[in-house]
Amino acid sequence: MSDAYFHPVSGFDLPRFAGIPTFMRLPYVPPGHERFNDVQIGVIGVPWDSGTTNRPGPRHGPRQLRDASTMIRAEHAVSRVRPFEARACADLGDVGPNPADIQDSMARITAFYDQVMGAGIVPLTAGGDHLSSLPILRAVAKTGPVGMVHFDSHTDLYHSYFGGTMYTHGTPFRRAVEEGLLDPKRVVQIGIRGTQYDREDQDFAASVGIRIIPIEEFHARGVEDVMAEAREIVGAGDTYVSYDIDFVDPTFAPGTGTPEVGGPNSYQALQVVRGLSGIKIVGADMVEVSPPFDPSGATAFLAVSIMFELLCQMV
Amino acid sequence: MSDAYFHPVSGFDLPRFAGIPTFMRLPYVPPGHERFNDVQIGVIGVPWDSGTTNRPGPRHGPRQLRDASTMIRAEHAVSRVRPFEARACADLGDVGPNPADIQDSMARITAFYDQVMGAGIVPLTAGGDHLSSLPILRAVAKTGPVGMVHFDSHTDLYHSYFGGTMYTHGTPFRRAVEEGLLDPKRVVQIGIRGTQYDREDQDFAASVGIRIIPIEEFHARGVEDVMAEAREIVGAGDTYVSYDIDFVDPTFAPGTGTPEVGGPNSYQALQVVRGLSGIKIVGADMVEVSPPFDPSGATAFLAVSIMFELLCQMV
Amino acid sequence: MSDAYFHPVSGFDLPRFAGIPTFMRLPYVPPGHERFNDVQIGVIGVPWDSGTTNRPGPRHGPRQLRDASTMIRAEHAVSRVRPFEARACADLGDVGPNPADIQDSMARITAFYDQVMGAGIVPLTAGGDHLSSLPILRAVAKTGPVGMVHFDSHTDLYHSYFGGTMYTHGTPFRRAVEEGLLDPKRVVQIGIRGTQYDREDQDFAASVGIRIIPIEEFHARGVEDVMAEAREIVGAGDTYVSYDIDFVDPTFAPGTGTPEVGGPNSYQALQVVRGLSGIKIVGADMVEVSPPFDPSGATAFLAVSIMFELLCQMV
Amino acid sequence: MSDAYFHPVSGFDLPRFAGIPTFMRLPYVPPGHERFNDVQIGVIGVPWDSGTTNRPGPRHGPRQLRDASTMIRAEHAVSRVRPFEARACADLGDVGPNPADIQDSMARITAFYDQVMGAGIVPLTAGGDHLSSLPILRAVAKTGPVGMVHFDSHTDLYHSYFGGTMYTHGTPFRRAVEEGLLDPKRVVQIGIRGTQYDREDQDFAASVGIRIIPIEEFHARGVEDVMAEAREIVGAGDTYVSYDIDFVDPTFAPGTGTPEVGGPNSYQALQVVRGLSGIKIVGADMVEVSPPFDPSGATAFLAVSIMFELLCQMV
Amino acid sequence: MSDAYFHPVSGFDLPRFAGIPTFMRLPYVPPGHERFNDVQIGVIGVPWDSGTTNRPGPRHGPRQLRDASTMIRAEHAVSRVRPFEARACADLGDVGPNPADIQDSMARITAFYDQVMGAGIVPLTAGGDHLSSLPILRAVAKTGPVGMVHFDSHTDLYHSYFGGTMYTHGTPFRRAVEEGLLDPKRVVQIGIRGTQYDREDQDFAASVGIRIIPIEEFHARGVEDVMAEAREIVGAGDTYVSYDIDFVDPTFAPGTGTPEVGGPNSYQALQVVRGLSGIKIVGADMVEVSPPFDPSGATAFLAVSIMFELLCQMV
Amino acid sequence: MSDAYFHPVSGFDLPRFAGIPTFMRLPYVPPGHERFNDVQIGVIGVPWDSGTTNRPGPRHGPRQLRDASTMIRAEHAVSRVRPFEARACADLGDVGPNPADIQDSMARITAFYDQVMGAGIVPLTAGGDHLSSLPILRAVAKTGPVGMVHFDSHTDLYHSYFGGTMYTHGTPFRRAVEEGLLDPKRVVQIGIRGTQYDREDQDFAASVGIRIIPIEEFHARGVEDVMAEAREIVGAGDTYVSYDIDFVDPTFAPGTGTPEVGGPNSYQALQVVRGLSGIKIVGADMVEVSPPFDPSGATAFLAVSIMFELLCQMV
Repeated sequence: MSDAYFHPVSGFDLPRFAGIPTFMRLPYVPPGHERFNDVQIGVIGVPWDSGTTNRPGPRHGPRQLRDASTMIRAEHAVSRVRPFEARACADLGDVGPNPADIQDSMARITAFYDQVMGAGIVPLTAGGDHLSSLPILRAVAKTGPVGMVHFDSHTDLYHSYFGGTMYTHGTPFRRAVEEGLLDPKRVVQIGIRGTQYDREDQDFAASVGIRIIPIEEFHARGVEDVMAEAREIVGAGDTYVSYDIDFVDPTFAPGTGTPEVGGPNSYQALQVVRGLSGIKIVGADMVEVSPPFDPSGATAFLAVSIMFELLCQMV
Repeated sequence: MSDAYFHPVSGFDLPRFAGIPTFMRLPYVPPGHERFNDVQIGVIGVPWDSGTTNRPGPRHGPRQLRDASTMIRAEHAVSRVRPFEARACADLGDVGPNPADIQDSMARITAFYDQVMGAGIVPLTAGGDHLSSLPILRAVAKTGPVGMVHFDSHTDLYHSYFGGTMYTHGTPFRRAVEEGLLDPKRVVQIGIRGTQYDREDQDFAASVGIRIIPIEEFHARGVEDVMAEAREIVGAGDTYVSYDIDFVDPTFAPGTGTPEVGGPNSYQALQVVRGLSGIKIVGADMVEVSPPFDPSGATAFLAVSIMFELLCQMV
Repeated sequence: MSDAYFHPVSGFDLPRFAGIPTFMRLPYVPPGHERFNDVQIGVIGVPWDSGTTNRPGPRHGPRQLRDASTMIRAEHAVSRVRPFEARACADLGDVGPNPADIQDSMARITAFYDQVMGAGIVPLTAGGDHLSSLPILRAVAKTGPVGMVHFDSHTDLYHSYFGGTMYTHGTPFRRAVEEGLLDPKRVVQIGIRGTQYDREDQDFAASVGIRIIPIEEFHARGVEDVMAEAREIVGAGDTYVSYDIDFVDPTFAPGTGTPEVGGPNSYQALQVVRGLSGIKIVGADMVEVSPPFDPSGATAFLAVSIMFELLCQMV
Repeated sequence: MSDAYFHPVSGFDLPRFAGIPTFMRLPYVPPGHERFNDVQIGVIGVPWDSGTTNRPGPRHGPRQLRDASTMIRAEHAVSRVRPFEARACADLGDVGPNPADIQDSMARITAFYDQVMGAGIVPLTAGGDHLSSLPILRAVAKTGPVGMVHFDSHTDLYHSYFGGTMYTHGTPFRRAVEEGLLDPKRVVQIGIRGTQYDREDQDFAASVGIRIIPIEEFHARGVEDVMAEAREIVGAGDTYVSYDIDFVDPTFAPGTGTPEVGGPNSYQALQVVRGLSGIKIVGADMVEVSPPFDPSGATAFLAVSIMFELLCQMV
Repeated sequence: MSDAYFHPVSGFDLPRFAGIPTFMRLPYVPPGHERFNDVQIGVIGVPWDSGTTNRPGPRHGPRQLRDASTMIRAEHAVSRVRPFEARACADLGDVGPNPADIQDSMARITAFYDQVMGAGIVPLTAGGDHLSSLPILRAVAKTGPVGMVHFDSHTDLYHSYFGGTMYTHGTPFRRAVEEGLLDPKRVVQIGIRGTQYDREDQDFAASVGIRIIPIEEFHARGVEDVMAEAREIVGAGDTYVSYDIDFVDPTFAPGTGTPEVGGPNSYQALQVVRGLSGIKIVGADMVEVSPPFDPSGATAFLAVSIMFELLCQMV
Repeated sequence: MSDAYFHPVSGFDLPRFAGIPTFMRLPYVPPGHERFNDVQIGVIGVPWDSGTTNRPGPRHGPRQLRDASTMIRAEHAVSRVRPFEARACADLGDVGPNPADIQDSMARITAFYDQVMGAGIVPLTAGGDHLSSLPILRAVAKTGPVGMVHFDSHTDLYHSYFGGTMYTHGTPFRRAVEEGLLDPKRVVQIGIRGTQYDREDQDFAASVGIRIIPIEEFHARGVEDVMAEAREIVGAGDTYVSYDIDFVDPTFAPGTGTPEVGGPNSYQALQVVRGLSGIKIVGADMVEVSPPFDPSGATAFLAVSIMFELLCQMV
């Protein structure tokens, strides 16, 4: 029987609008807490967007996501999985960034995740812009490169911006490949679309063996076929899942900084996660949720619904 | 030839933004009005949301729906039905609720609908939260249980909330079955989805014979196949249609209190109503439209477009 | 030297947008917590609006107020008071209401405040609609009637609504006087304005000795003169402070359900609290903050700025 | 004793959010209605903005103003006037404009007001942009020029726009003077401010004797002094009151097309109307309320609060 | 090699949020500019909405579209077309309308496009309401009638409004056929839907040979099949493309004045343009984008994404 | 007679909503333009907010300010100054920042302003967060320290944030004093308020002789008296004016990242600038306008109205 300490508060007992919002109404168990080492899956906020080249905002993401996540209940409607009973889940709090210093922030993030990994906790992150994934991977892939399923409308594989700036939310996976954190042959990027600067990122992908599935192929083949290929690419090894909310069509997820029209709808946004079944997930993130562009909170609610799907795959 | 008294004002004569807004620009014929007994289909507002367990707002629904309904014209584009010529339709006004007393409000609603049914008028209701359907059914099903086609993302079949509270917008149809207002074997619920508390509601449905079609089945089978089954379930008997706007995906209908992602789009939202063809409709409602969460009015416009489809099925 | 356990997190250490939001970034110390009895001033959320006769929303108030309160720093700019060092302050969490049962909710609220008063904690409440003040006063004034300084645009002294409904947000202080919780001769209501139903509430006030200062008098006399009279009225005895955000002009505080134009500006909204200096405050509340009508959060930020002023008067 | 037929619905009987919204919840008595000739003061909507040179929207004004006006109660807080008992007031409905033909629309408006004046009804108009005042004055001033108290941030006295266009919302009072509808020596314009094209309008004003009180003078002298002069200017003769909502500072009234910062606050916005006491008002209007720039409805609520003040001056 | 003068600014060099926004960051080359005659494709703003019968706003369209267009990059993701290198493209500025005079405005628009056509520039217009297309066609089709692919939810083929008004946004193509600007047998209208006044427009279409593809047929047949028919209808002759943003479902494109639910999604909105391949486009427009109903800018971003697709078909 | 090349477009000729928006509809004359050396006052955008410690957004300021500035006309209402005829004014464009590198961005800004100063142009800047003022001062005060009138609710004199970060929008004037760019004895800060971290900034101010006028003193003394002192402090020497929009009460200027309630209203916001009369202004800025928190654009319109006042003081 599961440990009641880690059960979320039920909306039958306390209305959803009441109470201090933690992720999915889980207990707050930061590093140093007496139950920290008992946690199996930790939900972590990374309120940081200094890598954003266009419209900032994801620094406010974790707070809005916690608020929206109080709408999440205990059981998956289809699989009947009850993740909070299957694993000891907790809200580990936020990593405190330095909004005016990129390198300092990255160091702080990696240090936090080193603690998490050290305690044997599998991290589920609420970003933050996409540069967040790089310092997380530095902790997650410390012992060797991992595979990755990457949902996004952009490759985030560019070399640099603005005449040589290497660390932006358009470059994390280029750096991660260079640093040996990702095994490019076990990386698949799904949903890529939108107008392009040039082909420098895609040429890099081709040169190292990253598989890109553009949106036209996604719509033509359908979720099941695409996800079968994704499972094959990452195989049985350790795999990270990175979900940029701009993968979803901006009508369904307006709260993000670099939208591209023509993406998946909200049902497909959930279905792709169900297609991860059987993959060995060593960490996952939901990034680029930007509250200033989502005053209604609809994007946040979709994002936490996806995070719940991710969680069900992680148990 | 139809009675011109009951014809709506045309946008060719008076711009849509002008004039006091009644439902679909119909004449206002409240109980006691000299033409009340000539009405065949009455559109009624129930501005009430005291049964809401999470985010209130549907008390403001009827006013916003009247406003949006001035965009509705005279003729159905596909069937060529002109409902306002086929039947004498009127705006019967709002039921005056008591926002601070649930039992008093339910008594007021049932009394109003008793008058409506007594005059032989078929009611099309603009809610209000979903608890509204219970006092309406007490009038509509006075002479015996009716069948129901129920579009929703929730079953609304729970036993109680917050330690024994029996009347909320999560319980109306449990009560309606208990009170003999619904024949559960002639009830079908379409679109059910979202994270679940537990399975208490679905176990009850199974125990009394209510058919639940979850969203996964809906998306897999398609509108036509699902609606064929719905028609078969309710058969030729008296049938109520209850349409919770949260049946529709919240991107298309954000103005509601308990959204669940991954639902039908706006085209499917209309098509399911067209699939009611041939059913004997003794009353219908559109509930849970919540203006505070719909500042643009888009949800209201979709809701009145659906109400026009319902009206075309009722003539 | 003050107990560092009760110090809020500084924005110099953790950016204001980071971290799980508690009131003013204080520690979360709910009833039952090991430090509960060490708290001297407790900030409490009452997420409840079932007494609202018009536009609901204050049930969402505490969450939005916690979020906005992360902008509050440690020191009062004028008085140099550092309240979090002067007293042990904590966030005591929310009272869990029953949104579908007014009497049950009132009982829950009074029970919670009985615990608070029993521990010797002075409560500062974030509502909730104005009916919240009644069950709070039932605990605060258990040992005898208290005086009250009441900032509002309405008297909330009506007898009943909708043909006999006794408990709404327009009636709490009528009930409180009837129940002997308030000493009417030590009650002053400041800022009353707007169109009126009739004079039933003001006749009652006159009959029991409540002093009403309408807005015209407030603007003519100025803050200092009015507050001097207020201090005189309540004198040296135990006094409750009830601050309805609709006291402030709705341009400065749009997030509320029953606005009345022509009220004080934000500077005056703070100054009146500074005018409470020397009063013996046994409890205070900030009510009627309604997030659905305050999407920008400006009302919430003003409300927590006022709460900080209240806190500085309570230390 | 006053005729109960013309009493508005009370919020004690029917909640403010319920019912089809008419102006101030008055009966709807359009021309041709059996009680039309019994009306003494008629509230009329002019949903028209074809004269707008910049940001359109006032065509949607009357509907939003009706909605907001359901918040108005029966009695003036200071003067104790109960206007709906003092005079038979009614909502006369909207004038139907032709949004694509300015001359046709002006003819329709004048024809409607000819009916109103013919029945001895004093009109209180809810516009519409400021060009509306011209066709209204053509009916109101049919028997001779009237005086005018004009609250605005602009003079609306320009000769023409865009190379010779004579009828825009920047020219109505130039035309009204030319057509002999206004006696310029009995016209006062209060609140004029903002950057200027040139001085052509002010030179015209000076040449015909119109008195302009710029905002700097208004702020320096105060409401009482300014309004005393205004009363003196218009004297005892027939006087029209034209209130452009952009007279008020745009922070208090954002919903308008040509805002100018630095204007009066909401309290002053009411007080100036109280300063009309004793003037013989033969008609009044509230114009330039633009819902697309007022999604919260705050401007509309202020505008109907001002309309209630105007009504109390008209009885 | 293409002329660098006409290359847009890259987001790699200047962040997308910086710089004065021209269409797609192209050089501003108005008539009279020294490079005007070198332009091959000119993007033109027509900020005008005097023909709007319901909710105005498209006069603000060009400015918002320029702003959103700074998100467009250099290359089409699928076809690899780089339109700004393939043709000399420029922002030709706005036509200055007269918002208070429809005939004067139409004359100004036609005069501007006569200059454009005279310089051999193919115009891509950002409207403006749909009446804009009429004065544009008067220039584009000066030498003989053209064919048209028309994406819309309305036919815009009505005879007149409001008792004889011939020039509104519901009548441009009736006039264009009457004036011999369009060859009706080479006109196809795609996406028609929504409630109808009557069948007067469709009867006219049938009588002159215009092909209407209603939305039900569109959804049943799919984009490819429908566009194959469209290509066949217009054939090899000169063809104009008119894209009313209300063709798209209003959830994806809320910023428009006369929405109709149940339309195509954003992916289909792009795909239909790709289906124009091989057509000889002599001009194109994107109309009815209405910023007051699109505060988030999502509609504008979709519209410029479609404009980029149109541009790629025009090179 | 003034050079017509530098006259802005008039709203009488081209409607305000038409045309590509430059600052105040001035010609666009970037460095390198043939008329650059003829410019006397240059309006410059600095779209940059990397120094923001809390809510980002000012990087989008210049674009929104240009848009709003098209509402500005040619003449000051009170002083009759026509600044665009008195001096050759132009929009010099934006400085292109590097959003992911603070030092690189500061270098770019200083380089741009070196060009401006080199051409003898007086800069009027539209920010950008307040850190922008530092690299600007490095160019403006190249030949020696300047005085400063600083309107703000914060001193921006802190030593560092987040454990040693020296360059944020809370530190620019500490650095400017340290670098010898400001003469602290000729610096006055007006409007300081809000809760405080500690007194480290104010202690620094006192130690170097900066005069701080807190908001309580401002409200008590009034605009005229305060500005007389300000003029005395800066004297006849070169003076920079830095206007942080959060000086104004956040109700009047919600679009900013770190609001503090209780500030001046919009009329006072203009009047303080008029109080600069006679000062020798060598540069001025308007900073911290944050469009994501100002969807209505009201803050931007107030800000450009203030910029026009600044401009009138600069001629």
